[in-house]
Amino acid sequence: MADLFAGTYARGAAAAAAASEAWLAAMLDVEAALARACEHEGLIPSGAADRILAACDPTGFDLVELAREGGEHASVVVPLVRALRIRVGEPIAGYVHLGATSQDIVDTAAMLVARRALEPLLGDVSATAAIAAELADRHRSTAIAGRTLLQQALPTSFGLRAAGWMVALDRARARLLDVRVRVLAVQMGGPVGSRPPVIARLVAAELGLAEPVLPWHTDRTREAELAGGLGTLAGALAKLGRDVTLLAQDEIGELREAGGGDPGEGGREGGGRGQSSAMAHKRNPVAAVSILACTRRVPGLVATILASMEQEHERAAGAWQAEWGTLRELLVLTGSAAAWGRDLLHHLQVDPVRMRENLGRLAAAGVSAAQEPELAVANELIDRALTAHEQLGGVRENHG
Amino acid sequence: MADLFAGTYARGAAAAAAASEAWLAAMLDVEAALARACEHEGLIPSGAADRILAACDPTGFDLVELAREGGEHASVVVPLVRALRIRVGEPIAGYVHLGATSQDIVDTAAMLVARRALEPLLGDVSATAAIAAELADRHRSTAIAGRTLLQQALPTSFGLRAAGWMVALDRARARLLDVRVRVLAVQMGGPVGSRPPVIARLVAAELGLAEPVLPWHTDRTREAELAGGLGTLAGALAKLGRDVTLLAQDEIGELREAGGGDPGEGGREGGGRGQSSAMAHKRNPVAAVSILACTRRVPGLVATILASMEQEHERAAGAWQAEWGTLRELLVLTGSAAAWGRDLLHHLQVDPVRMRENLGRLAAAGVSAAQEPELAVANELIDRALTAHEQLGGVRENHG
Amino acid sequence: MADLFAGTYARGAAAAAAASEAWLAAMLDVEAALARACEHEGLIPSGAADRILAACDPTGFDLVELAREGGEHASVVVPLVRALRIRVGEPIAGYVHLGATSQDIVDTAAMLVARRALEPLLGDVSATAAIAAELADRHRSTAIAGRTLLQQALPTSFGLRAAGWMVALDRARARLLDVRVRVLAVQMGGPVGSRPPVIARLVAAELGLAEPVLPWHTDRTREAELAGGLGTLAGALAKLGRDVTLLAQDEIGELREAGGGDPGEGGREGGGRGQSSAMAHKRNPVAAVSILACTRRVPGLVATILASMEQEHERAAGAWQAEWGTLRELLVLTGSAAAWGRDLLHHLQVDPVRMRENLGRLAAAGVSAAQEPELAVANELIDRALTAHEQLGGVRENHG
Amino acid sequence: MADLFAGTYARGAAAAAAASEAWLAAMLDVEAALARACEHEGLIPSGAADRILAACDPTGFDLVELAREGGEHASVVVPLVRALRIRVGEPIAGYVHLGATSQDIVDTAAMLVARRALEPLLGDVSATAAIAAELADRHRSTAIAGRTLLQQALPTSFGLRAAGWMVALDRARARLLDVRVRVLAVQMGGPVGSRPPVIARLVAAELGLAEPVLPWHTDRTREAELAGGLGTLAGALAKLGRDVTLLAQDEIGELREAGGGDPGEGGREGGGRGQSSAMAHKRNPVAAVSILACTRRVPGLVATILASMEQEHERAAGAWQAEWGTLRELLVLTGSAAAWGRDLLHHLQVDPVRMRENLGRLAAAGVSAAQEPELAVANELIDRALTAHEQLGGVRENHG
Repeated sequence: MADLFAGTYARGAAAAAAASEAWLAAMLDVEAALARACEHEGLIPSGAADRILAACDPTGFDLVELAREGGEHASVVVPLVRALRIRVGEPIAGYVHLGATSQDIVDTAAMLVARRALEPLLGDVSATAAIAAELADRHRSTAIAGRTLLQQALPTSFGLRAAGWMVALDRARARLLDVRVRVLAVQMGGPVGSRPPVIARLVAAELGLAEPVLPWHTDRTREAELAGGLGTLAGALAKLGRDVTLLAQDEIGELREAGGGDPGEGGREGGGRGQSSAMAHKRNPVAAVSILACTRRVPGLVATILASMEQEHERAAGAWQAEWGTLRELLVLTGSAAAWGRDLLHHLQVDPVRMRENLGRLAAAGVSAAQEPELAVANELIDRALTAHEQLGGVRENHG
Repeated sequence: MADLFAGTYARGAAAAAAASEAWLAAMLDVEAALARACEHEGLIPSGAADRILAACDPTGFDLVELAREGGEHASVVVPLVRALRIRVGEPIAGYVHLGATSQDIVDTAAMLVARRALEPLLGDVSATAAIAAELADRHRSTAIAGRTLLQQALPTSFGLRAAGWMVALDRARARLLDVRVRVLAVQMGGPVGSRPPVIARLVAAELGLAEPVLPWHTDRTREAELAGGLGTLAGALAKLGRDVTLLAQDEIGELREAGGGDPGEGGREGGGRGQSSAMAHKRNPVAAVSILACTRRVPGLVATILASMEQEHERAAGAWQAEWGTLRELLVLTGSAAAWGRDLLHHLQVDPVRMRENLGRLAAAGVSAAQEPELAVANELIDRALTAHEQLGGVRENHG
Repeated sequence: MADLFAGTYARGAAAAAAASEAWLAAMLDVEAALARACEHEGLIPSGAADRILAACDPTGFDLVELAREGGEHASVVVPLVRALRIRVGEPIAGYVHLGATSQDIVDTAAMLVARRALEPLLGDVSATAAIAAELADRHRSTAIAGRTLLQQALPTSFGLRAAGWMVALDRARARLLDVRVRVLAVQMGGPVGSRPPVIARLVAAELGLAEPVLPWHTDRTREAELAGGLGTLAGALAKLGRDVTLLAQDEIGELREAGGGDPGEGGREGGGRGQSSAMAHKRNPVAAVSILACTRRVPGLVATILASMEQEHERAAGAWQAEWGTLRELLVLTGSAAAWGRDLLHHLQVDPVRMRENLGRLAAAGVSAAQEPELAVANELIDRALTAHEQLGGVRENHG
Repeated sequence: MADLFAGTYARGAAAAAAASEAWLAAMLDVEAALARACEHEGLIPSGAADRILAACDPTGFDLVELAREGGEHASVVVPLVRALRIRVGEPIAGYVHLGATSQDIVDTAAMLVARRALEPLLGDVSATAAIAAELADRHRSTAIAGRTLLQQALPTSFGLRAAGWMVALDRARARLLDVRVRVLAVQMGGPVGSRPPVIARLVAAELGLAEPVLPWHTDRTREAELAGGLGTLAGALAKLGRDVTLLAQDEIGELREAGGGDPGEGGREGGGRGQSSAMAHKRNPVAAVSILACTRRVPGLVATILASMEQEHERAAGAWQAEWGTLRELLVLTGSAAAWGRDLLHHLQVDPVRMRENLGRLAAAGVSAAQEPELAVANELIDRALTAHEQLGGVRENHG
């Protein structure tokens, strides 16, 4: 069944890369890589891996039936392997899934799904940070009221605010880049975690995942680090979304989301996004609100992953099985928030005149509007931030 | 798309009653009820409501397209109303959704979905408690080691343990029965919560929901109470699942899940559920593990609902939109856990001989096995519990 | 050691009633009540209870030492009982704590602490709701912009907004009143929950707690309901705090927190609360911010209580021990938020002129400011709300 | 006031290093470092910094009064600076806190507290991992039942299980070592984050913290990474604690916690820890239970930190203020869990005979007990794990 709220919660390529179909495809990729490794090690006859690989085409697997039968075993791998063996046929069937346990397949698939989702997700984050960098550079001298506890405090520049968004996104992205390389590892330990590590090494190489020191069936520090990294990114996006909703208030009016048109054409409004059906004068900050709709769901999911680390013996009774859907939701929601973030900055309209007008209140209170000295410091800070951004390689990823 | 893990996370009728299709149907029911109310009040022409009602058949609505377009508006009601108006055609189209705001429809639909899901959910809980009551009665004199901090402490009776499960389930169920009656209310306040209450009253009567004192667009105590009630039930089920996994350990062996056969035929094992594909000697407690897989995901979701109560002005920018999927997951997972709980007790096999054997350790430690006096107290407590259970009307609901 | 942040997190009488000293006093009250019950049943000699009662004076117990030694036993009751027996002296010492288990004392004390904290807490909520009721009544005709997604939508009245705060607080309070009566129960089951219920009945009567059907050592539905009720209240307070921070923004300026002076003297500013040390023009909404500081910490704590419901056998190994501090924090933080809420409304200054001015934007957009018809509906709704408020008995509790 | 449950929740040096007194001392250290930096830059007269430094001795500050007055300002820095200025006296008083904002002091102090708490915390983790390494090495050939879903699956070695604990602890520790170096940074941005960065650089050097690219008043990725790292460690410790509680069950009896005596003297039981006061035959796994009591409280706290990342403009209204106590609790509880973990392994008694006996069930089921080939693989895996452990430098830190 479709998710009625997918337009909000599952926007963009990262969300799609973490959906159920993608999990199925990843599990089949793992079975295929396992077969290759077994053939390489002489555990199965030459040619068997190709036969198995050919059968590992997700087309034609009945997701609904796999799900249903998977429930009876608390493992979707049981019906998957059964179906795969039927596809492969005798005498190869017995070589499918050789020496593996269900958790090997699900865990490795989860890591594969994470890696595949992280690519577009980090692309969206990178693109968002790149736009923030442009805003920082362009608005070095755009004075705006600095606000603390939602009260006007002292003047600052809008460029510095945008640089702040960028730095937070860059930090979260750097962390996830590290997670992608170091944390996402293959799981290939067999029933109780004591399979010879050569198989894990081969499968890892085949799938482009890290090779762990030990199987990690009940060492869930990897899931925790991934969840923590996603949670950190979600928080950085939430800050951006929150700022825009506040600065887009009618009474402040310093930012606004343009309609769903092309970038630069923000003014084109006909039937655009965010227009209220009931109130023609009203313009909703849809992208900012949608970021927040996604990110507010994230901390509870991270807590679930962390609470699930208490896993028994060689395989948990419940805590592991709770991870599947939680990790999927985390990837989908954070991916969606990143897509919304990119969309938001892509269509953001800045109103320097309103910023200056609102600063008038501070002037009226005897606080002078941003002067050369303050702007000079802001400039220096922006330069530092942009330099750090470039060092991270903010512009090389696919935000074309 | 199907949920690959639905067999674990979305078992039974309650989970189905909270799925996306059910939300769509509920939203259409709300639009229909609104039309009736408007006609009753003379706000729309006589006959218009029937025309609208006829169009409110969920068949033929394209859930995927509604979801997609809903994302552009941060509201699935915008495309739904548009589609509905096209179906209804002129001159009636303008009478669809009259005076309502998107949140009126989504909130009322959420409450309707909750009520519809609570029916089978409470039926499952009631049935589970009824089986626990039977176990309590049957095993009044079945001595078992009472265990504290996972160490044998003093003898007790298995009947008293089962009575404890029953009382917790009954308490959680009583709370949700109260939530169903008092908390699940109609939302019909119009754009800023100031619609005349007569419409809310009529829609409430039509849909069988409570009529609120005020619109509650940003008073989320109702969602919080519902979430709290579901979280409490999930915890009561988790206790049951945890106990069974522990008592089913090979080394303890006092309980076991029989295969997926009929009740009473627990011994029928051929290809039964829980049989390990890799290890023929092994028998997995699938239902207990699946309860825990569901219930471990619940506390984080409740926290999300509570954290989302901080809603701005007359309609929140993000916090409300975060509730949709969270509440759905809460209903689905708790419903699934309840279905698994019923299944678990339905197939539970009790081994009084092993219970007595294990008590031998206490005897060896100089602690006498449960004697008449202790069993007499357990009996008295079981009687109290069964009486309270009957007063709650445990046996009347549909667990036939 | 003092809590450096207690001024924010532990304000008011409810927070004090849930502090460590209060837990110690409650545990001693439970031991005393147990002794009385035992004497009543002839289990200990006549006169022994009075001797024990006399020793149950918290003065002179060394909290630091109890805490330290309690850590060695994962139970603070072990050193407490030892110290109590020394105080009582022979031959009475052996009658202290008769037939009880540590959890009996801690759980009953937790319930007693909850009841004692709920009294001032509910008093604060009641007083806050009463002020909201006055605001609702006074500002029936005070037009304000209704705002959705932080954008001006349609006009409404400030009285209706205040009525919304009141209704949410009343609903949360009604729930906690119910919790206080039905949920807060004595625990007196002995080591494995099979103590004759007469002792529980007598202790319950002595302490003013409910008598449970069964001991509930590992049925944590009571803690869950209490936590859920507190979480719901925290959310209702958060909504109030959030609204005030938003309406107090310089650019909106419709509400403001007056200094820490008496009510009605809001204008008295000399050195008042919220004045920024660095920026003389700035006025911080301290009470609103402090509400949010407390309430944001609550959902995670509720999740911990719910996640801890999965308790093993007759006494949990970890999950129960995790509750102690969590429940204490929940009571302290929610109590503090309630005290801040009362303080906030007590000092709230309303600016109807700014409300009307800000509405000008809507007028400029062709939306007429609130007219008689709209205000008439708002009036009707306010009347309904005030009637419901009076039925709840909002004015009888101690908010003098 | 003392925390009645500190013996469980606040054990060891890390917990002490994160207590209120430590926060006060850290805030004073920040003020002193700021004064030095200002003097270095010629912003205050030569010699003023020494005067200020001399006044920054925590002795004599009244924590209770600071806390109380801090509540009135939603900032404990306001009364702290006032008290400090009085101590320093004229004409130096005006040079105290120069150009800083409250958040500069609290955030930098928080980072300093974190670093100071991480030292003993990581020492405890390192010591725990070192003992696990010894267990892994010593028990290479100790056969034990591998258990999945709490059922016996296939044989493995206890050494491999211990290696698994070690690897998880090492991974969590490596992450926190990285956090300590990269994440813990100075905050010195002034009221709206636009202070010249030279001051931050000097203060960072003085305090041994990282220098950030920009002030991070509302970029909370640092708090999030710290919280995530602590949450990951807590989960790794929870897995250890859970395993011990399970393997220490009477019916399994493969591990047990020795009394609180010296290591190696586990058998010395007189009045030892874990002995039940009521049941002399019973031995409670106090350290394992206490780990779980602490770690179960952690995920909710991490969620609170993540949910608090949504911070407004240049300073948040509520979300930042919610972090203070949450971060403190996180450090205290994780530190305490690490101290308990070290204690647990220090006193762990292994019973290879029971392990072998319990394996008999598998043999009876036709599964042969661990044979040379399996043990050879386990050996290879243990070697890999020990090599990785040594590369991390597991033995160099202070677990002497």
